[in-house]
Amino acid sequence: MKTNPGRFFEDYRVGDTIHHAVPRTVSGGERALYHTLYPARHALYSSDEFARACGLPASPLDDLAAFHVVFGKTVPDVSLNAVANLGYAEGRFLQPVYPGDTLRSVSEVIGLKQNSNGKTGVVWVRTTGLNQKGEAVMSYVRWVMVRKRDADAPAPDTVVPDLKPHLDAADLTIPAGLDFSDYDFALAGEPHRWGDYAVGETIDHVDGVTIEEAEHMMATRLWQNTAKVHFDLTFRPEGRLIYGGHVISLARTLSFNGLANAQMIAGLNAGAHANPCFAGDTVKAWSEVLDRAETANPSVGALRLRLVATKGGAPFDLRGADGKYQPDVLLDLDYWALVPR
Amino acid sequence: MKTNPGRFFEDYRVGDTIHHAVPRTVSGGERALYHTLYPARHALYSSDEFARACGLPASPLDDLAAFHVVFGKTVPDVSLNAVANLGYAEGRFLQPVYPGDTLRSVSEVIGLKQNSNGKTGVVWVRTTGLNQKGEAVMSYVRWVMVRKRDADAPAPDTVVPDLKPHLDAADLTIPAGLDFSDYDFALAGEPHRWGDYAVGETIDHVDGVTIEEAEHMMATRLWQNTAKVHFDLTFRPEGRLIYGGHVISLARTLSFNGLANAQMIAGLNAGAHANPCFAGDTVKAWSEVLDRAETANPSVGALRLRLVATKGGAPFDLRGADGKYQPDVLLDLDYWALVPR
Amino acid sequence: MKTNPGRFFEDYRVGDTIHHAVPRTVSGGERALYHTLYPARHALYSSDEFARACGLPASPLDDLAAFHVVFGKTVPDVSLNAVANLGYAEGRFLQPVYPGDTLRSVSEVIGLKQNSNGKTGVVWVRTTGLNQKGEAVMSYVRWVMVRKRDADAPAPDTVVPDLKPHLDAADLTIPAGLDFSDYDFALAGEPHRWGDYAVGETIDHVDGVTIEEAEHMMATRLWQNTAKVHFDLTFRPEGRLIYGGHVISLARTLSFNGLANAQMIAGLNAGAHANPCFAGDTVKAWSEVLDRAETANPSVGALRLRLVATKGGAPFDLRGADGKYQPDVLLDLDYWALVPR
Repeated sequence: MKTNPGRFFEDYRVGDTIHHAVPRTVSGGERALYHTLYPARHALYSSDEFARACGLPASPLDDLAAFHVVFGKTVPDVSLNAVANLGYAEGRFLQPVYPGDTLRSVSEVIGLKQNSNGKTGVVWVRTTGLNQKGEAVMSYVRWVMVRKRDADAPAPDTVVPDLKPHLDAADLTIPAGLDFSDYDFALAGEPHRWGDYAVGETIDHVDGVTIEEAEHMMATRLWQNTAKVHFDLTFRPEGRLIYGGHVISLARTLSFNGLANAQMIAGLNAGAHANPCFAGDTVKAWSEVLDRAETANPSVGALRLRLVATKGGAPFDLRGADGKYQPDVLLDLDYWALVPR
Repeated sequence: MKTNPGRFFEDYRVGDTIHHAVPRTVSGGERALYHTLYPARHALYSSDEFARACGLPASPLDDLAAFHVVFGKTVPDVSLNAVANLGYAEGRFLQPVYPGDTLRSVSEVIGLKQNSNGKTGVVWVRTTGLNQKGEAVMSYVRWVMVRKRDADAPAPDTVVPDLKPHLDAADLTIPAGLDFSDYDFALAGEPHRWGDYAVGETIDHVDGVTIEEAEHMMATRLWQNTAKVHFDLTFRPEGRLIYGGHVISLARTLSFNGLANAQMIAGLNAGAHANPCFAGDTVKAWSEVLDRAETANPSVGALRLRLVATKGGAPFDLRGADGKYQPDVLLDLDYWALVPR
Repeated sequence: MKTNPGRFFEDYRVGDTIHHAVPRTVSGGERALYHTLYPARHALYSSDEFARACGLPASPLDDLAAFHVVFGKTVPDVSLNAVANLGYAEGRFLQPVYPGDTLRSVSEVIGLKQNSNGKTGVVWVRTTGLNQKGEAVMSYVRWVMVRKRDADAPAPDTVVPDLKPHLDAADLTIPAGLDFSDYDFALAGEPHRWGDYAVGETIDHVDGVTIEEAEHMMATRLWQNTAKVHFDLTFRPEGRLIYGGHVISLARTLSFNGLANAQMIAGLNAGAHANPCFAGDTVKAWSEVLDRAETANPSVGALRLRLVATKGGAPFDLRGADGKYQPDVLLDLDYWALVPR
C-alpha cells in the first residue's frame, strides 16, 4: 500500500527520531493570509517599520503561524491515528521566522505509556522546528493518545517524561537585537506597559468571531495539516472538527484588545483543548495574568498569561464545581509573552 | 479597563489629531488576496510588465486595497461606536502604493454637530494615509454618526466643514511617470478610450457575485477592520453586517466589464451606503458617466463616474419617486478614474 | 455596448490568433493561496531549499496554478458562451513558473465543427502561456461547445484537428537543471520511486474534502476566471457550478497520499469533466498507472497516470456497463508526471 496509514501506538520507540516531511518556505503570502484568517493586529507582525524600530531586521511571521507550520508537518507521523491531543509543554520560541525562511520539523519520541484498556496508549514527542540554516526556531513537547493497530501487541516499558509544569522566565529566549526602548505605544494601539499588568488581573477581550467552515479549512490547509477530521464531512457527518490550533490563533489575536503590547510569544507552558469547536461557534477570549518577570533585556518584561477561548458563557468561568472545564470552554492556554517595560 | 471602548461623541474636539494604530507593510500577499476576494482584473494592478509599460515602476496595490488598509486603521478610533457611516468626500489618491510599502493613518477632526435628539452626533474627520517615508498616499473626509456616552454631556459648538460637492479634474493627482501613450488595449481587455465615453452614458456591468460569509469576513480582516458587527453573530443575530468597503470593491471590480480601461482611481467625490448588505445577497453593478475632463498629462483623461451596486432590481433605477434610494441599491459612489486618451 | 458579450460560434475562424487580456504577475501570495485552497504538499512546490536540491533555482508555482492562470485568461474569449467544456489534449508544461514571472495567454483557433442541430458548434483552440520574456511556459489544446448567435448563420468548413490520443514520453520537456539524483525521499514524504510503480497499479488516495462555496469562488477568482456560472446564484438558482479546474487541483493535491513523489506535471494527455461539481460535494481521488517511461534525464522517470475525482462511490469504478461515466465521477484526467528514478 502506497498511502500513509499513519503510525499506531506500537510503531513508536522511546528515542526514535522522526524527520517529518514537506519543508516549507514562507513568504509575505503566509503573513497576509494569517491576517486574513485571524483578526491579527500586533504591530510587530504587521509592519516592517515597527519591527525595525524594535531592533528586528523585519516583521517576522506571527509566532503562532510559525508554530502551525512546524506542527502541521508532524500530523502525518504523530496524530493521524490519534484519539485525542492531550497536552503541550516546554514550548520555546527560539528565534523569529522571516519571509524567505524554510521550515522543517523533527520529533523525538520521549515517552510512551499504554493505557489500561490495552487498546490505546499515550505518546510524548519533543518536536523541533528548524530553519534552512539548521537552526532551531522553536521546540515543544506534545502528547497524544494513539490507537494500537493490534490490541494484543505487548505494552512497551512505560516512560513518562519529566516535564516542567511551566517554563521559568529564565528559560525564555529573547530574540537577538530586540529592543523595546523606543517602543511606540500609540502605533501599537494601547498604552499599557509590562508594569501596568498585575498578577491575578483578568481581561475580557470583548470581541467575538463566528467561525465559518471555509475559514478553518483554509487555515488548516495553509499549515499543510491535512487530517481528514477537519475536511471530510462524509468521514465526520456530525461536523468537521476544527483544528485546535485555529482556536489558539483566534483567541490570541482576539486578545489584542487589552494585550496589544504582549507582542511576542516566548514560551508555551501548557495547553488543553477543553471542548471541540465547530463551524457556527462564536469564539471569544479572556486572559488572566499568571505571573510577571523581568528578563535579562532591560527593555523587555515577560508576562505569563492564561488565555481562554470560549464559545459562549460568561468570561472568567473556567471550571465547574466538579473541577471540570465548563462546556463552553474551548481552550485553556498558558504562555509567556514579551512586553515593553 | 484595558480594552478599547471606542470613542464617544463627546471624546472628539475639532482640531484633534488622532494617530491610528497598527501600521502595515503590504506585499504580494495582499495583492493576491485582493484578486482572490474580488473579481479584480484591471491590468495595471495585475501585471508588473503592464504597469512598467505605463511608466510605473511596478504594479501597485489596487487603489481600493490601499484605501481599505488606511480606512481599517481608523475604525477603532472613529467608528467603533458609530451608528451610521454617513458619507465620504474629497478623497484624493496621491500616489500609488507598492508591495513593500508600510502604511499608517492619521485623522484630523474637522467637524462636530450634535443631533437634536441629544443622544448622538456627527463627527467629520479628514484621514491621511502615509507611507514609510511619511509621504501622503491618500486623504479623504468621512463623517459618521456616533453615540454619546452620556446624553447629558453638553453639546460642542457646531462646526460643519465646507466640503466640495465633488473634486474638479484639476484637483486630481496624476501619478509621476504615468504614461498611457503606448497603452495596450488588447492586453487591458477592452478597446474603449477616454473619448469613447459620453457624459450621461450608462453601463450595466452584467456580472454578479453572490456573497458568502467567509469571503466578507476574510476581506474585512485583511484590512484589520475588526468591528464586531462584521464578525460576531451573537452580537448581531439578525446577520453579520458586511463592511461597506467590501461592496465598494465588489462593485468596482465588477465594473471591469465595460470600464476595463478606467485603470486608476484618482478621486473619491462622494459615497453613500444606501442599504445594508448581507451574505447571500447577489451584488451587481452599473455605472453612469458623470463628467469627462482632460488632464495635464496628454495621454491621460479623467472620467467622473457614478458606480452603483445593487442586490437585485433593474439597472439604472437609483431612486424612487420619493427621492429615496431604491431598497435594492447598496452603494452610490462618485469617483474619478484615469483612462487612456 | 461596452461590455463583453463573449464570442459566438460564428465569430471564430480557423487560423485566428487571439491575444487574451489581463497579464498577471505571480508572487509568493499566489503560492500561499494555492496551499490554502488545496491540500498541496508536493515538496518541490513547498520549499525553495528542496527545489534547489533538485537543481531548480527556487520553488516554482504549482504547475496547475500556472495552468489555471493561463486558462483563466482565455475564458472571456473562448468559453463565455460555452455550453460545455469538451476536452483537453497535448498539454505540455514547457518550463516552470516562478514568483515574479508575468504570464499572458495566446490562443490559435485550430478546429471548427458545427453541430447537426445548427445551434451550436465545437471550437478547438491551442492555447500557449507565455512569460515576460515571451517564452512559452505551457501549451495545450482545448475544445468547447459554443452557442451560435444566429442559428441561420452558415456553417463553416469543418476542420477537426489531428490530435495525439496522448503524448509520448519523448514529447515531454524536462525542466533545465532538474536533477533528482540526491532526492530526499524522507522530506518528500514517501519512499516510492518511479520503479516502484507498476503499469495497471491503482491507488486510492483515501482523503476527502467537502467543498464550500467560498473556497471554490476564491480559487476561481484567483485565476481571474470570472465566468458567472461560478459566482452568481441568481443566474444559476440550482447552484453555482464549480470551475472544473478546482476539481483538477483538488484531485491532484489529494493524490499526494500515494503519489508524493510524482512531483512535476509534464504533460496533460486528456481530461473529461464527467459530471458537474457543487458546494457540499465531498471530493476524493484515485489514480491508475497507465504507463511508465524513462526520460533523457537519468535521474527522472515519467509516469502516465489516470487521476479520477469522485463525489462518493467506490474507488476504481469509472464507467458503468453502458460505458458511461458513473454518476459519482467528476473528473477523468490523463497526465504525465516526473518522478525520481
